[in-house]
Amino acid sequence: MTETTEQYRGKELKALTIGIVGGTGAQGTGLGYRLAKAGFKVVLGSRDGAKAEATAAELGHGISGAGNIECAAQSDLVIIAVPWDSHKDTVTSLKNELAGKIVIDCVNPMGFDAGGAFPLIVEEGSACAQAQGILTESNVVSAFNHVSAVLLADQSLAEVDIDIMVVGDHKPATDLVQQLVDQIAGMRGIYAGKMRNAGQVEALTANLISMNRRYKTHAGVRVLGVN
Amino acid sequence: MTETTEQYRGKELKALTIGIVGGTGAQGTGLGYRLAKAGFKVVLGSRDGAKAEATAAELGHGISGAGNIECAAQSDLVIIAVPWDSHKDTVTSLKNELAGKIVIDCVNPMGFDAGGAFPLIVEEGSACAQAQGILTESNVVSAFNHVSAVLLADQSLAEVDIDIMVVGDHKPATDLVQQLVDQIAGMRGIYAGKMRNAGQVEALTANLISMNRRYKTHAGVRVLGVN
Repeated sequence: MTETTEQYRGKELKALTIGIVGGTGAQGTGLGYRLAKAGFKVVLGSRDGAKAEATAAELGHGISGAGNIECAAQSDLVIIAVPWDSHKDTVTSLKNELAGKIVIDCVNPMGFDAGGAFPLIVEEGSACAQAQGILTESNVVSAFNHVSAVLLADQSLAEVDIDIMVVGDHKPATDLVQQLVDQIAGMRGIYAGKMRNAGQVEALTANLISMNRRYKTHAGVRVLGVN
Repeated sequence: MTETTEQYRGKELKALTIGIVGGTGAQGTGLGYRLAKAGFKVVLGSRDGAKAEATAAELGHGISGAGNIECAAQSDLVIIAVPWDSHKDTVTSLKNELAGKIVIDCVNPMGFDAGGAFPLIVEEGSACAQAQGILTESNVVSAFNHVSAVLLADQSLAEVDIDIMVVGDHKPATDLVQQLVDQIAGMRGIYAGKMRNAGQVEALTANLISMNRRYKTHAGVRVLGVN
């Protein structure tokens, strides 16, 4: 893939088409809405293409819908927003369509019981690292792990005030993802380390869920000391 | 131990003596300074009691120094701030002196190489869980993992602006630690989940170190959505 952000697929940032695999789930729909509001062309993907089309039509803002494979094929950059249970199979099934592209993984491997949320142990260290292990021809970046689906979907909020930790090994890819995040109203993309440091960023979502429960809120984080 | 914060060792919050085991290290010294400035009686502990006394004398603010065992015995609440390498042995050696007390563990199990910092795998899940497994008569709480030792030590800063994630299974203990954190200028204690969610809070320090390197800063976090 290209080595500098400026040359990514020969397009300006705002000309990129962004696909969201698992785009009819709460996180995917919310991200699609915010990205479309920021001016990107967005394609929601779902195993059920008709469902994706219906969700897209409801959301408006020029968003379209398609099956996951078609969504991945049409898009310049693809966000994986499926449940952890189907993460490995979905990523594997899209390997060809994602080759040469930046892939953003926002999946958090978590379990839930009466005591709340807790991180699952992932053999590869993180969902993001699992995806990178499969998608050998793509550059996988972890981002959007902590943002509340409820806030993303709340159309009464003009901005979603949060910092997005961006983790990955390929600097042109993390740079581009930070720039993409910065386009979304209220958000800021912060470089937060290499792939081997993705697991705890994903797992921290369990702490945010604990905060949500204790404080009846939708917690997020801001990084201090970065201007 | 007592079941409500108000009854903890029969004292008002501000009357507590706080011991810092590993109190001559950067984190321990910085926390001691900030706690003494907040009005607490602070005892720095070290394997070398004379060194602790010398460090305490330099800091002033009524801080005293002692050997680790004496420090733990004298204090109502004890912060463990030793390097990860000596965590298990130090905690084990203080089991009797820490019985019946709240123990704050701020140790982050991390490795460093040319690529930066990365979390170490801890059999018990976290340093905090390791300590709780040993200190069966204490209530162990994780806190102060993310605060920069450089900022703590900078006496030109009247406040250290950061949220402290407080993690643990015993609510009266996490409540008291939150109250203690709230006494330090600029800090806020935020409940962030049960002990099983401590590992990723410790590990997130590797991400903050990655940010420090990229942005030439001393990064911290604020929790959004909690007022």
